[in-house]
Amino acid sequence: MDLSLLFAGTGGAVPTAGRGLPATLVRRGADALLFDCGEGTQRQLVRSTGLPDLQRVFLTHFHADHWLGLPGMLKSFALRDRDAPLVLHGPPGLRDLIGRMGFVIGRLPYRMTIEELEPGQAVVLDGYEVVPFVVDHRVRAYGYAIVEPDRPGRFDADRARELGVAPGPDFGRLQRGEAVGDVTPGQVMGEARRGRKVVLSGDTAPCEMVRVAAHDADVLVHEATFLDEEAERAAETRHSTARQAAELAAEAQVGTLVLTHVSPRHPGGAIRDEARAAFPRTEVPRDLDVLEVPFPEKGRPELRRWEPPPSGSRPAAAPAAGP
Amino acid sequence: MDLSLLFAGTGGAVPTAGRGLPATLVRRGADALLFDCGEGTQRQLVRSTGLPDLQRVFLTHFHADHWLGLPGMLKSFALRDRDAPLVLHGPPGLRDLIGRMGFVIGRLPYRMTIEELEPGQAVVLDGYEVVPFVVDHRVRAYGYAIVEPDRPGRFDADRARELGVAPGPDFGRLQRGEAVGDVTPGQVMGEARRGRKVVLSGDTAPCEMVRVAAHDADVLVHEATFLDEEAERAAETRHSTARQAAELAAEAQVGTLVLTHVSPRHPGGAIRDEARAAFPRTEVPRDLDVLEVPFPEKGRPELRRWEPPPSGSRPAAAPAAGP
Repeated sequence: MDLSLLFAGTGGAVPTAGRGLPATLVRRGADALLFDCGEGTQRQLVRSTGLPDLQRVFLTHFHADHWLGLPGMLKSFALRDRDAPLVLHGPPGLRDLIGRMGFVIGRLPYRMTIEELEPGQAVVLDGYEVVPFVVDHRVRAYGYAIVEPDRPGRFDADRARELGVAPGPDFGRLQRGEAVGDVTPGQVMGEARRGRKVVLSGDTAPCEMVRVAAHDADVLVHEATFLDEEAERAAETRHSTARQAAELAAEAQVGTLVLTHVSPRHPGGAIRDEARAAFPRTEVPRDLDVLEVPFPEKGRPELRRWEPPPSGSRPAAAPAAGP
Repeated sequence: MDLSLLFAGTGGAVPTAGRGLPATLVRRGADALLFDCGEGTQRQLVRSTGLPDLQRVFLTHFHADHWLGLPGMLKSFALRDRDAPLVLHGPPGLRDLIGRMGFVIGRLPYRMTIEELEPGQAVVLDGYEVVPFVVDHRVRAYGYAIVEPDRPGRFDADRARELGVAPGPDFGRLQRGEAVGDVTPGQVMGEARRGRKVVLSGDTAPCEMVRVAAHDADVLVHEATFLDEEAERAAETRHSTARQAAELAAEAQVGTLVLTHVSPRHPGGAIRDEARAAFPRTEVPRDLDVLEVPFPEKGRPELRRWEPPPSGSRPAAAPAAGP
């Protein structure tokens, strides 16, 4: 089952030429979930994967740089005659926010449901769940953990045959955890294999809840608005420095740390270098980069750089557009 | 006095990879006026000129694709500690719109004034004015004419001397239209020279008001959402086809026609070809292209193509951003 993260906007507060406002597209199999939707997100998606028929949008909090792209995207879905239902999730207050924007959103030809989530209230999806947890920001804000259950171990068919079990229904019984005669599942099934865990911090000061939620995660996407030299400003605004995020990643023993929400004042290189000093397996994606997250036994997550179209051309319909 | 138009967003309704949502930056000398402000406009400006300290924003109407970029831009100005005042103009209803978005915009450190305009109510600026006029769209919508007064003709100093006028205060009198002895201004002043006129149609079906307002304009920026084959749909939605815009430009005897608000369904080439058949001096800019509008006696407007940064690099801070 493929699992990937597309970093549609890696900046914070104010967009720069290189970094759009916060949005992360998580794809798992045919599912497409969007976490935050800053202004310009729909165009970022159009530029890369094309605007996908998202099933769900999760907002971390209601600062405008995290959701101002949502009304326009909802309208664009409508203009495309979408009819698949869409679910919006977020902290309490989401219903009020969408209500206030109702005059913009207007009538939609698809069913849009608003589900405010309490901390810990898992959204159970097909083969995984998304769990919100409270983080430490200036307003009520959530991080989200995307968690797969452990998978059963591998079935050793050769060993089962050696033990006298005939291929067929008895193999199935063993795989479902039932004994067959004297043969127990433990004799022929390997150890349970870990599911994957991807955690997104949203906007937050370094905090215990992220540390706990991210324990042993394959990927922690953490904000890194500031550098260490601005630690005081980070504390005032309840954001994190690159070093704080990296130290937290080390303590939580995550596999890969991904830093986003980079301030317009900082080139990603300084953020990355500061973080890698404390946690070497740190990535600072640029907009539209994709992180593939394989099952743990298949290898480490890898960042695939987005390739802009060749110089002289424009993305999409461009060659036809100019004289 | 330089006058230019930067086409920050040349699409309509839904952004594409190549075309952002409507926004046109008009610069005249030190003035920077923005006409419409679709989602993503602030980033388009950051990518090209940098976010300018606009003095005024003019909205043509309140369909969301024409203004959803405004709240975020107002907030970005605030985050940059702007203190220069800003004036928002638009049709009646503007105050209500900004009021509804007040919970997003929040407190601003600069003075923002809202001035709803009646049709024909000129905004008089230093050396030119901006005049709204009613167009024909599904909701009340304005176009805007940017108009410079005629300039006095050139003063012929040699001729004045020949007629016995001494250089000095008497030259000034003649230039201000006063006679000096027997010598009248008409003997030493050339013909009055036309000021420039740039007209923006906003969203509209082809209509008489645009035709009148654009009469003899140096530049008419007209919407061309559709092609001729979709004339029925254009009429239903109160938009224009490329051919309609071109025919109108020919009738209004404009200098240069610029087509924007191109539907995501059409490559600009088809729009351009259809229009040029009826009006050869048609341009279909791509996003971030700039049209320089010289005084009529200095030549025709010229479209300067935006050059994307070289392949392999990213716009701005990019080289530092990658590992």
